[in-house]
Amino acid sequence: MLENVTIIGVGLIGGSFALALKEKNIAKHIIGVDFNDSNLAKALELGLIDEALSLEEAVKKSELIYVAIPVDATISVMEKIMLLINGKQIIADAGSTKFALSEVVKNYPLRNRFVGTHPMWGTEHSGPEAAVHGAFEGKACVICDKENSAKDAVETIETIYKKIGMHLVYMDAKAHDLHAAYISHISHITSFALANTVLEKEREDDAIFELASGGFESTVRLAKSNAAMWVPIFKQNKENVLDVLNEHIMQLKKIKSCLEKDNYKYLLELIEDANKIRRIIK
Amino acid sequence: MLENVTIIGVGLIGGSFALALKEKNIAKHIIGVDFNDSNLAKALELGLIDEALSLEEAVKKSELIYVAIPVDATISVMEKIMLLINGKQIIADAGSTKFALSEVVKNYPLRNRFVGTHPMWGTEHSGPEAAVHGAFEGKACVICDKENSAKDAVETIETIYKKIGMHLVYMDAKAHDLHAAYISHISHITSFALANTVLEKEREDDAIFELASGGFESTVRLAKSNAAMWVPIFKQNKENVLDVLNEHIMQLKKIKSCLEKDNYKYLLELIEDANKIRRIIK
Repeated sequence: MLENVTIIGVGLIGGSFALALKEKNIAKHIIGVDFNDSNLAKALELGLIDEALSLEEAVKKSELIYVAIPVDATISVMEKIMLLINGKQIIADAGSTKFALSEVVKNYPLRNRFVGTHPMWGTEHSGPEAAVHGAFEGKACVICDKENSAKDAVETIETIYKKIGMHLVYMDAKAHDLHAAYISHISHITSFALANTVLEKEREDDAIFELASGGFESTVRLAKSNAAMWVPIFKQNKENVLDVLNEHIMQLKKIKSCLEKDNYKYLLELIEDANKIRRIIK
Repeated sequence: MLENVTIIGVGLIGGSFALALKEKNIAKHIIGVDFNDSNLAKALELGLIDEALSLEEAVKKSELIYVAIPVDATISVMEKIMLLINGKQIIADAGSTKFALSEVVKNYPLRNRFVGTHPMWGTEHSGPEAAVHGAFEGKACVICDKENSAKDAVETIETIYKKIGMHLVYMDAKAHDLHAAYISHISHITSFALANTVLEKEREDDAIFELASGGFESTVRLAKSNAAMWVPIFKQNKENVLDVLNEHIMQLKKIKSCLEKDNYKYLLELIEDANKIRRIIK
C-alpha cells in the first residue's frame, strides 16, 4: 500500500481514480491538486481526496503522482514535476494523447520515473461530481513506451491498474495516438458535428426532439463532452485526426453520391460493409 | 379487446408489437404474415403469433392489420390490402417514412381505414428473435395525417398505442419525414460511414479494438442496423436525407478546417455549440 498519492486534476478521471485507489486499498492518503479551487473544494467535500495542497507541497510528499488534466496542461505541469521529483518517486498520466508528452519528458534526466498511460474509460461528463465508483473495471489501459521507464515504476503502475480491474495493452506513443484517432477521437468529432447539424437545422419547437429515439441519443451523446478537454487532444493529435476525418468525409460522400445517383445497389453494399462492425462490437 | 389482429412482418417491430398486444390484453388472437417462411416459423416457435396465414386469409379474418415491413415492401403490400378490406377494418403501418405511402393510399376508396403511424422505437437488431417485451414503453409515436382517417380508426389506434405505453405526437407525413431525417436517418448514415471509416483504415490486429471504449461503441452501434430495412428508407426520404447529409458534411468540414488552420479558438466555439445538445438530450 502507498502512503501518499497525489492526484493532479480531481475531475472525472482523477476523481474516479482516487475512489478506486481507496476502494482497493492501494493508497492510504490522497492529496488533490487542481488549478480550479471550486473543483478542489468539491473533491474534498465529496471525499474523493483527503487533503488539498499546492503542486510543490503535494509532489514532495508523494510516492506516486498521477496527472489527469487536459493534455495541453499536462505538458506544462509535467515539466514542473520532472524538476521536483527524486529518483524514487513515480509519475503517471492518464491523457488521451501520448506522443507530444513523450517528446517533452525525454529531455529530463528523471524521465524513467514517468510512465505514460491511457485508461480507456470516460463519460461525456466532467468535474469532481462526475467521478464514479468502479469506473475502470473491465476496461483496457494502454501503457506506452514501457522500455523508457524504470522497471519498478512500470511494475507499480501495472499492479495498480490490474487491481482496479483493468487489462493492459502495450504500444509506443505514436501507435497509441494513431489508434486513438480511430477508436475515440473521430467518434467525438462525428458527434460534435452531428449535434451542430441538428441544432442548426432543427429550429422548430423543441417538442420535435421528443421524437428522438435511442439511436439519436447514442450517436450524439459524446457531443456533450467537455470542449476544454477535447480541443487540446485534437490539437496534439492533429495529423492522425485529420487523416481519419478525411476518410470519414469520403465515406459520407460515397453514401451521398449513391443517393444523388439513385444507386441503391451500391448503397446496400456500403451498409452491408458497415454491418461488418459486428465482428468488432458485440 | 380485438378478436383477431394480423401482423405483417414478424420481425423486430412486428414481433415486439405482437408481444405488447398480448401483454396488454389488446388482442385475443394474433395472425402472422411474412414472406420469409423461416421468420414465420420462428415467430410461431417464440409464441409471438398464434397462427401463420397467407396475406389474403389473414386480412379477411382481422379487425386490425398492422404492417411492419421495410418501407418499399409496405407500399406494394398496402396496395393489395386496400383492395381486400371492407369499411370496418383498420390498417396501420409502422414505417420510418410516411410521405410516399400517404401518396399511394390516397388513391384508394377505403383510404380512411388506414392510419399512418411511426412508433419511435427500435434497436440495431432485426428478425423475430430481436422482438422484446415492453418495447414501446415511454416512447413517442407519430400519428400522421389524422384528418384523412376515419375517426373510429384513429381512436382505436390511439388507444392501442397509449395502452402499450406510448405518448402521441401528431404531424403531417411531409413534416414527419423531414424531422425523421434529422433525428434518426442522419444518425444511421453517420454510423454506417464511421464503421466503414474504421474498418477501412484499422486493418491491424483486431486486438486494437479492445481499446474501443464506450464512446466508440455508442457511436457505431447503429452501423449494425439491417441494410434491407434502411436502403428503402433513405430512398423514400432521399431529398430530406440529402439536405441533412450536406449540412452534416459541412459541419465536419468546419472542424477539419479549424484543424488545418490551427484555429483552436473557433474549434472550441464549435464544440461549445455542440454542447448545447444537452438542452435536448438529458
